[in-house]
Amino acid sequence: MTDKNKIARYKAIAEPFHVDFTGRLTMGVLGNHILNSAGFHANDRGFGIANLNHANYTWVLSRLAVELDEMPHQYEEFTIDTWVENVYRLFTDRNFSISNSEGKKIGYARSVWAMINLETRKPADLFVLHGDSISEYVCDEPCPIEKPSRIKVTNQECIGKYVAKYSDIDVNGHFNSIRYIEHILDLFPIEIYKEKRIRRFEMAYVAESYYGDELSFYRDEVNSDEYQIEIRKENGEVVCRSKLIFETKNKFN
Amino acid sequence: MTDKNKIARYKAIAEPFHVDFTGRLTMGVLGNHILNSAGFHANDRGFGIANLNHANYTWVLSRLAVELDEMPHQYEEFTIDTWVENVYRLFTDRNFSISNSEGKKIGYARSVWAMINLETRKPADLFVLHGDSISEYVCDEPCPIEKPSRIKVTNQECIGKYVAKYSDIDVNGHFNSIRYIEHILDLFPIEIYKEKRIRRFEMAYVAESYYGDELSFYRDEVNSDEYQIEIRKENGEVVCRSKLIFETKNKFN
Repeated sequence: MTDKNKIARYKAIAEPFHVDFTGRLTMGVLGNHILNSAGFHANDRGFGIANLNHANYTWVLSRLAVELDEMPHQYEEFTIDTWVENVYRLFTDRNFSISNSEGKKIGYARSVWAMINLETRKPADLFVLHGDSISEYVCDEPCPIEKPSRIKVTNQECIGKYVAKYSDIDVNGHFNSIRYIEHILDLFPIEIYKEKRIRRFEMAYVAESYYGDELSFYRDEVNSDEYQIEIRKENGEVVCRSKLIFETKNKFN
Repeated sequence: MTDKNKIARYKAIAEPFHVDFTGRLTMGVLGNHILNSAGFHANDRGFGIANLNHANYTWVLSRLAVELDEMPHQYEEFTIDTWVENVYRLFTDRNFSISNSEGKKIGYARSVWAMINLETRKPADLFVLHGDSISEYVCDEPCPIEKPSRIKVTNQECIGKYVAKYSDIDVNGHFNSIRYIEHILDLFPIEIYKEKRIRRFEMAYVAESYYGDELSFYRDEVNSDEYQIEIRKENGEVVCRSKLIFETKNKFN
């Protein structure tokens, strides 16, 4: 199998209700398309959730990092390419590139996934499952952005609380991975999005949260363009961490 | 032009992050697909927002009513057909049918739109604009659900407040029409969605709201399966009204 065949292509359009007030796709919606491309690729290749559920296994997203020169604008068609970079015993790295309507690469993303047994909730050995067929898809396509970093939030002042509602809950009964992104973006006043855009966004998914959970948000301002966020449950358990790096917009983005 | 040519077809798939905990597409996401199909149809035919913005006009959604026998389930491909039912001087009625992956009609929707001048915010005469080309698309395809009804909420007890955030705001600087649907669904405890599904959902968009607006939610329980909702701004101005009719699920839906 050539490397070209190992890369899946997913096309999308920046729909009107999926862009923000600046007319650019929101990070949450881009995240959704990225995770969809991963899911469709894995399903097509026989190691996706649809197949795995029968065998009582599911993929769990551990890390996501997205870095962009520009966001697709309203009505723009864009393309996501995705491929498997590495397979370890308990994790796999899956990368992405995002191209604009002219085929120019406008960004990249990295993700880290584990596979768990739905009954025991324990991670599975990826080399054993499916006769190691996933390793055949490892591909050395370049992904010139940094790996997900270690995020540590020290500030103990809660800057917001949110109780998980019906619309936040996914088919597994967990708080939807994309919804966390939206709630994190909403911690910032709209003014910041007028002058700046998000150059890099990271999520580290640590523990599941559920309907009715009261989530508390904590934030460190590393500098005026870099923030680290932590979401905790009432009992103090960390649900996820995030890093946002803003940059001042220019006339092109 | 035959009636068949007047109907636009739009295909979609119920993506994993767009289904709720029951594995069915959420009403907000279905609403998004419905409005997309309207926009793409109008754009393709030369009377859409993309064209109109150049002429300083835009379509404004006034009413939406959706009625369904069942919601598409996760990974199901479904189809939305849309056509113009009537054109009046200041309004146009656009209808929709929703078909499941087997081509069976599983629901219908009705919508009412006005066109406004972006500078004056006043409605435009649809018979005059674009040389009345829109009337050529009027089509008598059946839409066997009731027209949007008159919604009136009398309860003065506020059951929830929400301050409009970054993610709620669309490219026009207004609270996103789809986001209202999600916030309305979130007024109900998740338990109701375990036993019941929404058979009919209506929205009446009355006035725009903006970033930072504090929205208050009021609700009349007409009976155990029918609710009417009103969203008001701090000054009491009504933003929108909604009606939900639930029905107890059976093994098919």
